[in-house]
Amino acid sequence: MAKKTVNVAQVGCGFMGRSHANAYLKVGKFYNLPVEPVMHTAVDLIEPAVKAYAANWGFANWSTDPMAIAASDEIDFIDICTPNNAHAPIAIAALEAGKHVGCEKPLAADLGEARAMRDAARKAARKGVKNYVWFSYRGCPATALASKMVAEGKLGRIFHVRAQYLQDWGGPKTPLLWRFKKELAGSGAHGDLNAHIIDLTRFITGQEITEVCGAIEETFIKQRVIPESEAGNIKGGKVSKKAKMGRSTVDDAVLFLGRLSGGGVASFEATRLATGSQNDNRIEINGEFGSLRWSFESGNLLYYYNANDDEERAGWQRIMCTKAGKHPYAGHWWPDAHTQGYEHGIINCTAMAFQDVGGKKMEVKIADFEDAYQTQRVLEAAVMSARERSWIKLKDVK
Amino acid sequence: MAKKTVNVAQVGCGFMGRSHANAYLKVGKFYNLPVEPVMHTAVDLIEPAVKAYAANWGFANWSTDPMAIAASDEIDFIDICTPNNAHAPIAIAALEAGKHVGCEKPLAADLGEARAMRDAARKAARKGVKNYVWFSYRGCPATALASKMVAEGKLGRIFHVRAQYLQDWGGPKTPLLWRFKKELAGSGAHGDLNAHIIDLTRFITGQEITEVCGAIEETFIKQRVIPESEAGNIKGGKVSKKAKMGRSTVDDAVLFLGRLSGGGVASFEATRLATGSQNDNRIEINGEFGSLRWSFESGNLLYYYNANDDEERAGWQRIMCTKAGKHPYAGHWWPDAHTQGYEHGIINCTAMAFQDVGGKKMEVKIADFEDAYQTQRVLEAAVMSARERSWIKLKDVK
Amino acid sequence: MAKKTVNVAQVGCGFMGRSHANAYLKVGKFYNLPVEPVMHTAVDLIEPAVKAYAANWGFANWSTDPMAIAASDEIDFIDICTPNNAHAPIAIAALEAGKHVGCEKPLAADLGEARAMRDAARKAARKGVKNYVWFSYRGCPATALASKMVAEGKLGRIFHVRAQYLQDWGGPKTPLLWRFKKELAGSGAHGDLNAHIIDLTRFITGQEITEVCGAIEETFIKQRVIPESEAGNIKGGKVSKKAKMGRSTVDDAVLFLGRLSGGGVASFEATRLATGSQNDNRIEINGEFGSLRWSFESGNLLYYYNANDDEERAGWQRIMCTKAGKHPYAGHWWPDAHTQGYEHGIINCTAMAFQDVGGKKMEVKIADFEDAYQTQRVLEAAVMSARERSWIKLKDVK
Amino acid sequence: MAKKTVNVAQVGCGFMGRSHANAYLKVGKFYNLPVEPVMHTAVDLIEPAVKAYAANWGFANWSTDPMAIAASDEIDFIDICTPNNAHAPIAIAALEAGKHVGCEKPLAADLGEARAMRDAARKAARKGVKNYVWFSYRGCPATALASKMVAEGKLGRIFHVRAQYLQDWGGPKTPLLWRFKKELAGSGAHGDLNAHIIDLTRFITGQEITEVCGAIEETFIKQRVIPESEAGNIKGGKVSKKAKMGRSTVDDAVLFLGRLSGGGVASFEATRLATGSQNDNRIEINGEFGSLRWSFESGNLLYYYNANDDEERAGWQRIMCTKAGKHPYAGHWWPDAHTQGYEHGIINCTAMAFQDVGGKKMEVKIADFEDAYQTQRVLEAAVMSARERSWIKLKDVK
Repeated sequence: MAKKTVNVAQVGCGFMGRSHANAYLKVGKFYNLPVEPVMHTAVDLIEPAVKAYAANWGFANWSTDPMAIAASDEIDFIDICTPNNAHAPIAIAALEAGKHVGCEKPLAADLGEARAMRDAARKAARKGVKNYVWFSYRGCPATALASKMVAEGKLGRIFHVRAQYLQDWGGPKTPLLWRFKKELAGSGAHGDLNAHIIDLTRFITGQEITEVCGAIEETFIKQRVIPESEAGNIKGGKVSKKAKMGRSTVDDAVLFLGRLSGGGVASFEATRLATGSQNDNRIEINGEFGSLRWSFESGNLLYYYNANDDEERAGWQRIMCTKAGKHPYAGHWWPDAHTQGYEHGIINCTAMAFQDVGGKKMEVKIADFEDAYQTQRVLEAAVMSARERSWIKLKDVK
Repeated sequence: MAKKTVNVAQVGCGFMGRSHANAYLKVGKFYNLPVEPVMHTAVDLIEPAVKAYAANWGFANWSTDPMAIAASDEIDFIDICTPNNAHAPIAIAALEAGKHVGCEKPLAADLGEARAMRDAARKAARKGVKNYVWFSYRGCPATALASKMVAEGKLGRIFHVRAQYLQDWGGPKTPLLWRFKKELAGSGAHGDLNAHIIDLTRFITGQEITEVCGAIEETFIKQRVIPESEAGNIKGGKVSKKAKMGRSTVDDAVLFLGRLSGGGVASFEATRLATGSQNDNRIEINGEFGSLRWSFESGNLLYYYNANDDEERAGWQRIMCTKAGKHPYAGHWWPDAHTQGYEHGIINCTAMAFQDVGGKKMEVKIADFEDAYQTQRVLEAAVMSARERSWIKLKDVK
Repeated sequence: MAKKTVNVAQVGCGFMGRSHANAYLKVGKFYNLPVEPVMHTAVDLIEPAVKAYAANWGFANWSTDPMAIAASDEIDFIDICTPNNAHAPIAIAALEAGKHVGCEKPLAADLGEARAMRDAARKAARKGVKNYVWFSYRGCPATALASKMVAEGKLGRIFHVRAQYLQDWGGPKTPLLWRFKKELAGSGAHGDLNAHIIDLTRFITGQEITEVCGAIEETFIKQRVIPESEAGNIKGGKVSKKAKMGRSTVDDAVLFLGRLSGGGVASFEATRLATGSQNDNRIEINGEFGSLRWSFESGNLLYYYNANDDEERAGWQRIMCTKAGKHPYAGHWWPDAHTQGYEHGIINCTAMAFQDVGGKKMEVKIADFEDAYQTQRVLEAAVMSARERSWIKLKDVK
Repeated sequence: MAKKTVNVAQVGCGFMGRSHANAYLKVGKFYNLPVEPVMHTAVDLIEPAVKAYAANWGFANWSTDPMAIAASDEIDFIDICTPNNAHAPIAIAALEAGKHVGCEKPLAADLGEARAMRDAARKAARKGVKNYVWFSYRGCPATALASKMVAEGKLGRIFHVRAQYLQDWGGPKTPLLWRFKKELAGSGAHGDLNAHIIDLTRFITGQEITEVCGAIEETFIKQRVIPESEAGNIKGGKVSKKAKMGRSTVDDAVLFLGRLSGGGVASFEATRLATGSQNDNRIEINGEFGSLRWSFESGNLLYYYNANDDEERAGWQRIMCTKAGKHPYAGHWWPDAHTQGYEHGIINCTAMAFQDVGGKKMEVKIADFEDAYQTQRVLEAAVMSARERSWIKLKDVK
């Protein structure tokens, strides 16, 4: 008997869109899903681009009208990969129309929108409509194993979380792209990168951040070359004095400290100016009975310290998280130590969503609008802390 | 204008087959190939299995008759993923019928077959028929970068190669699978793993092995539990005395030393009993001006030592081989440090083959039958050395 | 002609004392110093203990009266390795008596004492009396190389410092030692560990911390077993309910953020509850042209990223800082990659002090009372920030 | 009551001598030895040099006559740090005179001498005279822990040993030092470096090498600049054509394979041309129940894989071998993770010798003449194998 199909419309066909299309292409080959996602419609603003994209990736249809698609009877699942400021209207319309929604992170451009989306998701959920947010690092076997180990009590009481997301593409030679304009991007490293590590902290520890105890929001590079002025004005790695400059209105880095609901303390740092780190999403967790350490740049590996090991042998243990039947997601893929790459996190999250859509229990709990709303509250608290130069309790951020 | 299509028949639908089907699914989405590979026919021996496989992966047709497919007018490209003893008849028939052939490694079950395949490939090549061997580790950005750096002279004269392929699945509790029977598998770790590191040595250094100066072929676990007897006879990791045992007729490990055509020396080791290493394909190369080091288990990274660096800073440098435009294959995939996994090596090799089939210069030269025949000669020389307890010159192995 | 001798009195004969005695024993064998330190007098409170100590280490004399020794005509150099609350009286008396002083870190138990010591040192310096503080991690070749590279501009403008000193000996099973009593220890991890990483940040970057932007001071383990009650009450790693408990009055961890005089931002963390890290004093620095990374647990290594390297090869470079003539201190010791251990940092600092005492330019500038006073101001600012729940400018901390 | 003293004469005052003098200086401060070694006499050939050396290090006397010292009534212990060709006459004379002997490795310049020394040691031992060989890597906590773990059965049956000692100081620009002349040095990398890793293999596994199954002895750099001709003839890293060249008569690298008495296989490699490795003495051991890995360049760490761990967590574990009471030697030194350096291996071995001389059981069994003779047999077997191009059984090497 054929599986029930779920027609997917993907809105937004940039880099993240491409990673989702790849996921739809592959997920059913590796996972035995209860329903079959169908690559039904690709949606983006520029007609020739979206037509070519749909043809390349195998979407049956294309459209340039996201709101129409959000309302269309033919669509069962809307996957939103647009810039952040378009998340709310599309998601809310789709949820109200009874469509399942997957949405890129961060949930929204501001906290008000995020709350409205969360409320819409709650309401729709009562009618069986599902919602997910693509915090794709939950899709790594290593982070999912970490989450499981903490949930099982392997770390005991958690004292410390140290979470950092370090990139280095935002140096002084990088021109004034749209990502450096607040009206388009919402924020800089904060919404882009801190969102990930806040979610990861919640995912792994199972705890909430209850207070932000100080934050720095910093724009190191205040003036950047206007791209139109770029040609001929960046030579040999130096910016010519003739180049036209414009003002960056987003943060390059945001750091903050926090307290966890279980009594631990945490530090968070997101930056685009950590020279030498291209995509170092990393986290360390110290608990009473043990510790965990992970970095995406060697993302198949989870490091574990078991404080209850015999002292002679106790030490950080390098777990290659690729063992079928032992490590989350691993059994769907290749043999042991035949590693997963960046894209597998997204495919694994997609699989979880369609397990859930099909009525099966997710192997690993991925993020939903409720989770993403909590993360957005922490992002907002950090901004408030930096602005007001004081501590912010999360209960005061709504 | 639509691209010219190339109808592919894939013969053999096990683990390696699956990794190739995945490659055909994806290669055209990430590479702008001059021709379009079409998933035309899946071929394997058991009808229900091959039907299900074809349906899952999207092959239009299926068959249980490899030789018929090798002769079929509808097929342009035969991809052979069968056990080793079936490579030769299928490949030779396909080449003679004017079809391009991609073949899994090692090329053949013995040197005679390998030579016949090489000869058939040479003959077919005169008529424009192409041939490839899936030494998939050539498809890693890091090994391809290593090959490029050596070719550019960055290492100068090469003194040392240290190549090891370490796995650990073949311990005493592993039953007498077909892989431990010589008549089915040809050899153990030797053909499976040493084949890879011999090819990798040739690929990176651009040199031939000219002499094997000593080899050990060892079967540590001489008796294994017969699988039918397994149930109830392996408990708590111990083999019961009542279990029926059978003789393993392949090597568990083969080590050998060798000399390179450029005057350097090399050591090779393949084993299934390196407890703790699940898939550690690794190589170190020391040259006059610098050195390189790579291990598949952290396969996105190439370590480089530049002896001409200022002595104050000289040191092993960790290159994350994911930079578009700077590192082989990388520009077709994700942003910097958004890593590749096991399957990307195979997809990248597949892309190279179809660049070549389409008349474009391959970005990276992958292995062909000539390469694989040279590798098979070295495998044979090592077996002779272990048997005769003496040095073997490659010129005496044909 | 014999060298001028310098009679040293070492006050405090615990673990740190032992490491200094070892330094006096060895420093003249490895360094050709302009003056010869003489192990003249060991000083501690308990007569039998100090007598045995003097005999074991080869001090010619012993005493139980530090203030008398500080005034003694026979002594040229006082080395203070006592608990923090004894630093000020001994140091000030010695400086006023015209003796050179080396003092353990942190400089003092509180900022007022630290300022008085700094003032006494300034005054004595006008008469040629020297002062040093044993921030011994300045004595590692790797940190000294880092300092040199930053001073030479190799990193350009500094964006980020990430400094952490992680230990794990202070878990819930550790009894209420004197180190957990504020009246004896002054503070917990803060004065002990943050002092080191603040100094290291100043040493490597050559910059001051100008503002503390939020701090957390946390005592995770509020009640600890009273040692007298310990026997029989900690069994199998569990504390019996019958054990008598007492209150810990120091911090277990202090985290804070800060701004640097050069415009960068920094984060600091000291903890005794980072399970899995026994002595992980570590720092990362990201600059416009490159980055550095160091951890004491692999302390011979400095990791360097040169952003001006060709992009093909750019990557973190592991520098083994043991090359004579190329790396600080290294030429006085063993051949290349014949590594240094913990004690060498102390010996190297001692050598620097006696180079200076003998009128030679120090190879590497170690810390003095002025440096240590600046560090103490930052420690104080962090405490104020945590208490007042707000940002603290260093100009307001005196 | 004062301890019994043992008067030590140290013969040979070069780099190794210096490391031993440092050991005598310190060993009694850190170890509570049953006897007290006294730095009685330093011996070397050049009078002014040995006088200065004795003065610097604190030897009470000096001499230029080793044979007289070997016979002197005042001396109880002869420590031989001379070039290899002087070991035999001094050691045999000293043993016959009833003096304890410690000797640098390799034991002798050839196997005949080594056997004679072993025989002399056996004979003297009957009268209570002790003998030791300074295979100093037995003095590292990590290797001693490895040895203990194997002895306790933690690895079970051993399948593989992979031992390599990689250095890189012997490139083409290095002139024709005495170390490249066979008549002075005996051999090149083989005696210098393979000696260490053969001993380490024996020490850790507790097994003998029973057969050498192939060896390569290679002199890559056959002509080197004669040092007198060096001035002005090596510029910018290039050798001028006018430089006078001489022939190197020792190996640059020796590789060989072997079989172990317990049924395992092993590979050994020593080289001075492994560009990038300054002192990488490293070993990997794979057994049925687990594996171990060590490299001197991060010598405080032992990596351990426990195959009996739950599969979810199994992985290579980084053991920092500095825990007092848990790791060999560690309790005599600094707190946990306050690392040891190169010199501590020598000091620890010295401590073991004087525990034994004083009638106490050694904490760790260091090498004696019997051990060193077995190692020399393996060195000889490898040379024979390379020369005869065949397998050599150790029972045929005497």
